[in-house]
Amino acid sequence: MKILKKTEIEVVFQPYGNRSTFHPGTTIMDAARILGVDVSSLCSGQGTCGKCKVKIQEGIKGLSPPTDKELSNLSQDELSRSIRLACQTQVTLPSIIFVPERSRVGKQRLQTEGLEVPVEPDSLIRKHFVQLPPPTLHDAKSDEDRLLDALSEENGSSIFLVDYETAKALPVLLRKAEWKVTAVTFKDRIIAVEPGDTTDRCFGFAVDIGTTKLAGFLINLKTGKVAAVAARMNPQIPIGEDVLSRITHVMMHGLPALAEVHEAVVSGINEMISECCAEADVKTEEIYELNFVGNTAMQLLFLKLWPQFTALSPYPPVLRRGVDVQAAELGLASHPRANAHYVPIIGGFVGSDSVADLMAVDMLNSEEIIMDIDIGTNTEIAIGNKDLTMIASCASGPAFEGMEIKHGMRAATGAIERVSIDPASLEAYYRTVEDAPPVGICGSALVDAPAELLKVGIINVMGRFNNDMAKETDRVRKTAEGWLEYIIAKKDETGTDTDITITQADIRELQKAKAAMRAGAEVLLKTMNLTKDDITQLYVAGAFGNYIDPESARTVGMYPEVSLDRIKFVGNTAGTGSRMCLISKNMREYAEKISKTVRYYELAVDPGFQSEYVKATFLPHQDLSRQPMVAEMLRRLKRIE
Amino acid sequence: MKILKKTEIEVVFQPYGNRSTFHPGTTIMDAARILGVDVSSLCSGQGTCGKCKVKIQEGIKGLSPPTDKELSNLSQDELSRSIRLACQTQVTLPSIIFVPERSRVGKQRLQTEGLEVPVEPDSLIRKHFVQLPPPTLHDAKSDEDRLLDALSEENGSSIFLVDYETAKALPVLLRKAEWKVTAVTFKDRIIAVEPGDTTDRCFGFAVDIGTTKLAGFLINLKTGKVAAVAARMNPQIPIGEDVLSRITHVMMHGLPALAEVHEAVVSGINEMISECCAEADVKTEEIYELNFVGNTAMQLLFLKLWPQFTALSPYPPVLRRGVDVQAAELGLASHPRANAHYVPIIGGFVGSDSVADLMAVDMLNSEEIIMDIDIGTNTEIAIGNKDLTMIASCASGPAFEGMEIKHGMRAATGAIERVSIDPASLEAYYRTVEDAPPVGICGSALVDAPAELLKVGIINVMGRFNNDMAKETDRVRKTAEGWLEYIIAKKDETGTDTDITITQADIRELQKAKAAMRAGAEVLLKTMNLTKDDITQLYVAGAFGNYIDPESARTVGMYPEVSLDRIKFVGNTAGTGSRMCLISKNMREYAEKISKTVRYYELAVDPGFQSEYVKATFLPHQDLSRQPMVAEMLRRLKRIE
Repeated sequence: MKILKKTEIEVVFQPYGNRSTFHPGTTIMDAARILGVDVSSLCSGQGTCGKCKVKIQEGIKGLSPPTDKELSNLSQDELSRSIRLACQTQVTLPSIIFVPERSRVGKQRLQTEGLEVPVEPDSLIRKHFVQLPPPTLHDAKSDEDRLLDALSEENGSSIFLVDYETAKALPVLLRKAEWKVTAVTFKDRIIAVEPGDTTDRCFGFAVDIGTTKLAGFLINLKTGKVAAVAARMNPQIPIGEDVLSRITHVMMHGLPALAEVHEAVVSGINEMISECCAEADVKTEEIYELNFVGNTAMQLLFLKLWPQFTALSPYPPVLRRGVDVQAAELGLASHPRANAHYVPIIGGFVGSDSVADLMAVDMLNSEEIIMDIDIGTNTEIAIGNKDLTMIASCASGPAFEGMEIKHGMRAATGAIERVSIDPASLEAYYRTVEDAPPVGICGSALVDAPAELLKVGIINVMGRFNNDMAKETDRVRKTAEGWLEYIIAKKDETGTDTDITITQADIRELQKAKAAMRAGAEVLLKTMNLTKDDITQLYVAGAFGNYIDPESARTVGMYPEVSLDRIKFVGNTAGTGSRMCLISKNMREYAEKISKTVRYYELAVDPGFQSEYVKATFLPHQDLSRQPMVAEMLRRLKRIE
Repeated sequence: MKILKKTEIEVVFQPYGNRSTFHPGTTIMDAARILGVDVSSLCSGQGTCGKCKVKIQEGIKGLSPPTDKELSNLSQDELSRSIRLACQTQVTLPSIIFVPERSRVGKQRLQTEGLEVPVEPDSLIRKHFVQLPPPTLHDAKSDEDRLLDALSEENGSSIFLVDYETAKALPVLLRKAEWKVTAVTFKDRIIAVEPGDTTDRCFGFAVDIGTTKLAGFLINLKTGKVAAVAARMNPQIPIGEDVLSRITHVMMHGLPALAEVHEAVVSGINEMISECCAEADVKTEEIYELNFVGNTAMQLLFLKLWPQFTALSPYPPVLRRGVDVQAAELGLASHPRANAHYVPIIGGFVGSDSVADLMAVDMLNSEEIIMDIDIGTNTEIAIGNKDLTMIASCASGPAFEGMEIKHGMRAATGAIERVSIDPASLEAYYRTVEDAPPVGICGSALVDAPAELLKVGIINVMGRFNNDMAKETDRVRKTAEGWLEYIIAKKDETGTDTDITITQADIRELQKAKAAMRAGAEVLLKTMNLTKDDITQLYVAGAFGNYIDPESARTVGMYPEVSLDRIKFVGNTAGTGSRMCLISKNMREYAEKISKTVRYYELAVDPGFQSEYVKATFLPHQDLSRQPMVAEMLRRLKRIE
């Protein structure tokens, strides 16, 4: 039996049952993190997001008094039921804490799929089996020359350099292997020599480092085929849900915090490597190269580059080009001399995930004009073809991730992801992730709901609730704050013991988010002297984009109106691009070309952006001539004249 | 006051006065090494060289009984005077040990000078001062691009890569330095960025790693000028005086011993760096590159390459090409991202010291045929011009270093370095290093003495003592073993209390050493279809070579007979070549060219070598037609018919 130190108290988390002892005064959030208990937080413990509500079941008398931040985030009713914010509340007595479903991150939907683009495998890693003649007095050349001569006989004109670390192993290894060895080359360097013929064992690992999730692909470098796939939540999330809170954490705590966020993501990647290697029966030492894509903040934190100045206007990144680093230096589980390549970025707001997008849709070789939108907290919009490609980034905000939305959440178990409203009864129909009881609404439903509300006339083109509709259906009602809201799922159907609604404020958030994207696209089109009719193909990328209903998105005016058959959802092209860059040196050169030639357009300095933004807050748009199809439908439904 | 542990005994070394406590059973040599006491040894403690004689002044009763090796190396008289071999004798009682002058390594002559060859400084290290425009929203490019763009504006077309370590420092450094920085480049890499303008502080360090001695040169890379010079005995000597005993030590004790010999030489180099930096007021961080030359064994041990197979027939080296390694990885005191370059070698017996020789005499650009001889334990002989250069290595043996010679020693204080014999009186005249009382004879006297003995008729052309001469002078006498010997310095003149002589056996050693060299040269000439008359210039290199009397060397037939005005002593060209390679990338390419194109000729497989060797044991040579000048002189002196 564990003997408690006099000064320590036991804290138990339910429904998990995790428990340990802590010093009195520990916050509930800190205790949860130490125990690995899954408590949601979007503001990294600042007390502002209100997502970390927990119910205290025992130890109530030992709690710290509610802070100002709790008083503004918790209703009197909640406080009276001992519901508190985990990040604000300290425990001083043995306690039992219940984490309600709503406050759990839950089993996140981890999309690893993306557009499959066939690429001829042509890795920078090569293996060459050679048999060397043993030295004699007539031929006493160096071990180095012996190996290189055999390689150039086998390989034609290739000229390699023997890495110093390889050289150190060479004399003993060549003789133990009886002069039959496999040389592992990376570019022009021999990074390893292995006894015998190991040419059929040559692997690489491609990673997509998302702010929220990691996807990893173990790849056979000889065939280019995927040997195993893994996914993880980004272990940086407990440090801060969004990039800004992670960077703020680093800026506040200095280099040790930079090391901490770096090690967090590396630990997640190493877990994926172990998982994939176990699945495919591959040794981690058989991974000779790793390739990474991610946004610019992920690049900074993964490579331990000081992120402060990239987070402040004018947001210059540290490195633009592709980066090659010894994988061992980053702590990655792989061959001791494996290379880690981070795909080039474009700018402070346009990372290598965007480069990967453009590579996957092959924009720079297209004759026709392509638009590519990668939707996220920042949405990147690229327009162009082989002659000119421009890209802009707009702050679409975290609404699609569930922030600032009353019942917002990510696309985890129980998230409402589809909504439709019956125009006759005004009743709602919805679908949830994994068909679990609904616990909130995720981004795709946040696009569906306003589109449906507009179509049935509950909101108007300015996004405003029609006061009269409260008389037509009990699904429309006034909130405590005096706003109107629409009930998507009623209390008795939900897993949270409350109605799940979309409020006037939520609609406003959606309008702000989509207006930012739409204005960015419109400004970019105008800058390039193009119109929506020039767009022959609209690609919607990003894990979230895949779940959007294209018609709902068109109805709310998220992007320029193009016919649905020209829209293609390409999913997680970041992972696709990472795999392409891993297996092909041509693709790696293509990435450098994209990084170098695609022009970043800074919307913040465009004088027309603000007025475009205001016009785009309308549903679908103030200038209906830009949305003739939606205008026609709304006229038909008699929502406009 | 130090309190002795019960089990420890105090050992004091005189005349130095060093003392410490040791476990009973410690050998005197081990105690001396631990205390840094200077006790000579050529066989690395095997008990065979007999050079480590010490006199026990106190503690005699606690000594281990004489070993067989001591019994064969010490006379009964010596044993009765408590003279013992330090490497064989263990102490078990508190002891006082006297190290006689003869058994000290002494202040070694450390030659650092060599031929000065003017080279245009054009280092691989460059410094570039640039002022960057601060980022704005209209110009938010990466810190990397900002730096590179400024560099290419300043520099024309140059394309650089930012090292990962440099990148990590970049964001904070650029802003602290207010965008005025100096980029330090090595080849196409930016290895450092420094605040402000540091372009006038750019240093490198060139090293000649000799088996016996180290020479170091702090060089201003901008001007190519030497800022300071230092020299040291190679700290590997206590581990083994010659390369073979050091390699044997490594083979017997494995990787820790390899690390030990590596660290020994690095510690000596770092001491030289400190000394030079202090003298020239340079910070070690201002040394951005280091360049090394040395024989192949020194290359292996310095770079921690496993030396076993290079020490065994057919003696293949591990690496032939030039090696670039992070200086920090080798533990060198310099800028944390400084490069260490080891100049390429030619083969197992022909190191980068030979490459440096050929570079310094510019053999590969010569129209005329040049011969270059670098005399040492192995003597390298190169012959050639711009069309073809061949090099051979012959085992001239350690006689010139004093081994196998009764009173042999290195060119340290008190070494007899010049001998002449009055043909009338048969009396000897000599000169010693630093004019100290003579304690032994060094290599240059080992050439003089036989030449003089031949000229005065004490020995004949076969090197044999003329028995009758003992009647002519008391300087010629029989040794205890029954051989004849000639007294160079009499007991009352010496610092050793014994006569210093050259014996019949010593003459044999000289004959063997010079015959090996001469036969090598003759075989090489024949292989190249040349004769001695084709040689327009004969360079004699190596620290030892510098002290040889060219006429004595010709008289004994050390090298093919060319007229004295064609002989040039070029001294330590290894150091010269190291400096050249440090300051000039052309010279570094030249070294690669030498390493690649000079053909190594293996004397061991030449069927004619053995008979050439036998002929060359004669003084000057059995075939007198090859030594017409010496033959003429000997005829004149009536030594031959």
